[in-house]
Amino acid sequence: MIVTIVGTGAMARSIATRALAGEHVVRLVGRSPEKAANLADQLRATAPPGATPDVRASDAIAVEDADLVVLAVPYPTGLAVAAEYGAALAGSALVDISNPVDFATLDGLVVPAGTSAAERIAAEAAPGVPVVKAFNTCFAGPLLGGKVQGLPLDVLIAGDDEDARRKVAELAGSGGLNPLDVGPLRRARELESLAFLHMAVQERLGLNWSSAVKILT
Amino acid sequence: MIVTIVGTGAMARSIATRALAGEHVVRLVGRSPEKAANLADQLRATAPPGATPDVRASDAIAVEDADLVVLAVPYPTGLAVAAEYGAALAGSALVDISNPVDFATLDGLVVPAGTSAAERIAAEAAPGVPVVKAFNTCFAGPLLGGKVQGLPLDVLIAGDDEDARRKVAELAGSGGLNPLDVGPLRRARELESLAFLHMAVQERLGLNWSSAVKILT
Repeated sequence: MIVTIVGTGAMARSIATRALAGEHVVRLVGRSPEKAANLADQLRATAPPGATPDVRASDAIAVEDADLVVLAVPYPTGLAVAAEYGAALAGSALVDISNPVDFATLDGLVVPAGTSAAERIAAEAAPGVPVVKAFNTCFAGPLLGGKVQGLPLDVLIAGDDEDARRKVAELAGSGGLNPLDVGPLRRARELESLAFLHMAVQERLGLNWSSAVKILT
Repeated sequence: MIVTIVGTGAMARSIATRALAGEHVVRLVGRSPEKAANLADQLRATAPPGATPDVRASDAIAVEDADLVVLAVPYPTGLAVAAEYGAALAGSALVDISNPVDFATLDGLVVPAGTSAAERIAAEAAPGVPVVKAFNTCFAGPLLGGKVQGLPLDVLIAGDDEDARRKVAELAGSGGLNPLDVGPLRRARELESLAFLHMAVQERLGLNWSSAVKILT
């Protein structure tokens, strides 16, 4: 698959790393072309010996060829970016990884109760484009290597389009992660609540953002 | 501690089993005195050789001596029971383990978004009594033995009274579980959301109610 990742931060790096591990083609889109180019260079430099990862920084229009467009940016930015892309997203599925946490208080979400960032992006910014919520319950650190305590990270996946959910599950699974399809996009409410809880307890439990939520069976 | 458990179902049995493993005194209160007496008999019968568990069925007034009163009943029943006990709860902490899930649809909660069963019990049924949300993210099956994949179950604990949270953490820890203090009672919103998510995916992921949510570090 062609996976376009919007953003050049820690989550972009980790998802790109997993995507390259799964031998997908990665395109990086950043507001700063230099940052995107630098991240592409770093990803090539950290590739396993012998691997020739197909990764490069790209301009925004590159989303047109993508199977998946991952919004690895804060929620308000993702909302704006999705709206800006508009028709260019036709044929792609949009992956919202955001956590609309009130970072000033770390005591709640900035989306009203009873909805989710993912549902608002789908309704307001990308009508007609399949939106999938995924990766938001993973922290960037553990996601980079893909494991915690030797176990593959769970990637909880919610979306109303089955084919789009399947593509995201393929991305996660081929990258060494454990995809879990949790159903319709409205389950993003619970996924965002879970990630908020996980964030809110980091300092209190001394977890240092290196923990991962797993459903053990 | 004296742990009074209201209810005689699967969660009552599992919490009583963990409490007895922690060498606490257990009192069982049921609407049917026979059911409570039967459960007390079963708990004595399944005690390890040599152990003399202090467990018996009790009448409602027994809550007056309890350190912890665990509402191991459905949310509407717990709300009514807490209100009925009233002043008898003075000196105890009330533990709400409920999941106010809409079981007809398994698609949401019956409490309005932006609140929680625990907060409503605290505000409406037990003003002045410290209320703690705990055990709701554990299923009865794994909780009975206390482990999943050899790891102690996480018990996420929320409440506004630090001493009450500490007592619940002591109950969980002494019973072989892993208590995690997640902070104020309003975090019950996220704990109830998490348990709902975990329930909602059981059939879809073929998990058979034997799974457990862990924060792996």
